[in-house]
Amino acid sequence: MSQAPIDFWFSIGSIYTYLAVMRLPEVEKQSGVSFHWRPFSIRVIMKEMDNFPASKPQKLAYSWRDAERRAAHYGVPFRLTPAYPIKEYERANRVAIVGAAEGWCPAYVRATYRRWFGEHQEAGAEPNLSESLKEIGQNPARVIALADSEETRAAFRAATDSVRALGIFGVPTFVVRGELFWGDDRLDDAICWHMSGPQAKA
Amino acid sequence: MSQAPIDFWFSIGSIYTYLAVMRLPEVEKQSGVSFHWRPFSIRVIMKEMDNFPASKPQKLAYSWRDAERRAAHYGVPFRLTPAYPIKEYERANRVAIVGAAEGWCPAYVRATYRRWFGEHQEAGAEPNLSESLKEIGQNPARVIALADSEETRAAFRAATDSVRALGIFGVPTFVVRGELFWGDDRLDDAICWHMSGPQAKA
Repeated sequence: MSQAPIDFWFSIGSIYTYLAVMRLPEVEKQSGVSFHWRPFSIRVIMKEMDNFPASKPQKLAYSWRDAERRAAHYGVPFRLTPAYPIKEYERANRVAIVGAAEGWCPAYVRATYRRWFGEHQEAGAEPNLSESLKEIGQNPARVIALADSEETRAAFRAATDSVRALGIFGVPTFVVRGELFWGDDRLDDAICWHMSGPQAKA
Repeated sequence: MSQAPIDFWFSIGSIYTYLAVMRLPEVEKQSGVSFHWRPFSIRVIMKEMDNFPASKPQKLAYSWRDAERRAAHYGVPFRLTPAYPIKEYERANRVAIVGAAEGWCPAYVRATYRRWFGEHQEAGAEPNLSESLKEIGQNPARVIALADSEETRAAFRAATDSVRALGIFGVPTFVVRGELFWGDDRLDDAICWHMSGPQAKA
């Protein structure tokens, strides 16, 4: 396909991002559409919007149950309940920023989510972090040093700054020609829009 | 179908409830599943949870755009942007409580939403309220007096009280054997669960 990829904006730490992360390889293969994986800090954005999911226990309990049902529907493994929210959120996502620059972001994000959701090892913390990097052929010491560098911190902030103009308020969000599709459950809509939808509104 | 109907918990005033309200007649016909329309006050519940959608402009703007796209997908008329939030929220929903007791709740809710979204006449206010009631063969003066009575106010509060134990935090919510399905976009999942899903979790 010659079209631009769909922007896949996400943060490691999000429940529904897990579903998207696990589904994307198959979705890419079946649709022929490619995705540009773009990590940023949804925590910063939600804090600015005074939006704290962890403070809404009914909604959070529902999200786990809903994600579990949808995972079953997709055939994605799901084992309740991974630690949430994760403590090493920043580092988990800064490693993804390094991966985006070096070309192994999807592999890392899938590996770390598999360990977090499948083995209940928190993303961003050990042993998840080093084991995930080793699994994808990266040197943990090198990558973690780079992820903690001021350069990567600045790139993470810049990524987060860039979503404000797009109006993103949650993850995962798929962006197609300026159109936002929020939620793993809008992935099909995003693909339809990408392939045959009308042009973005003026 | 001999199974119990699906509980359809909603409030007039919700954006996504419009989509469910407009779709349900056709969905009932095609699936053979029936729905029990149960109005309550999501405003009371969301206030208790410190959850104010109107204070999150990015999310609200997205909701209108997303609902517009989904309406187009369903073939449901949609004309941006109806007044929101509605001022006569309480009365709009207390009339639905009267309708639930007297058997004309779905007809009223559909009529008032059609005027609100289609003609941009606010639900719960005039001329929407009286015109919607006349359209469905009800006497506005009689119904409005009943809707404003202490008996109906108490029934509205009781309906709202009963959703707390269910864990409902948003509308529309479909409830099938204790399983919650939040959002118009979970209607298909609710029907699948109703017809063939596993038993509710213990």
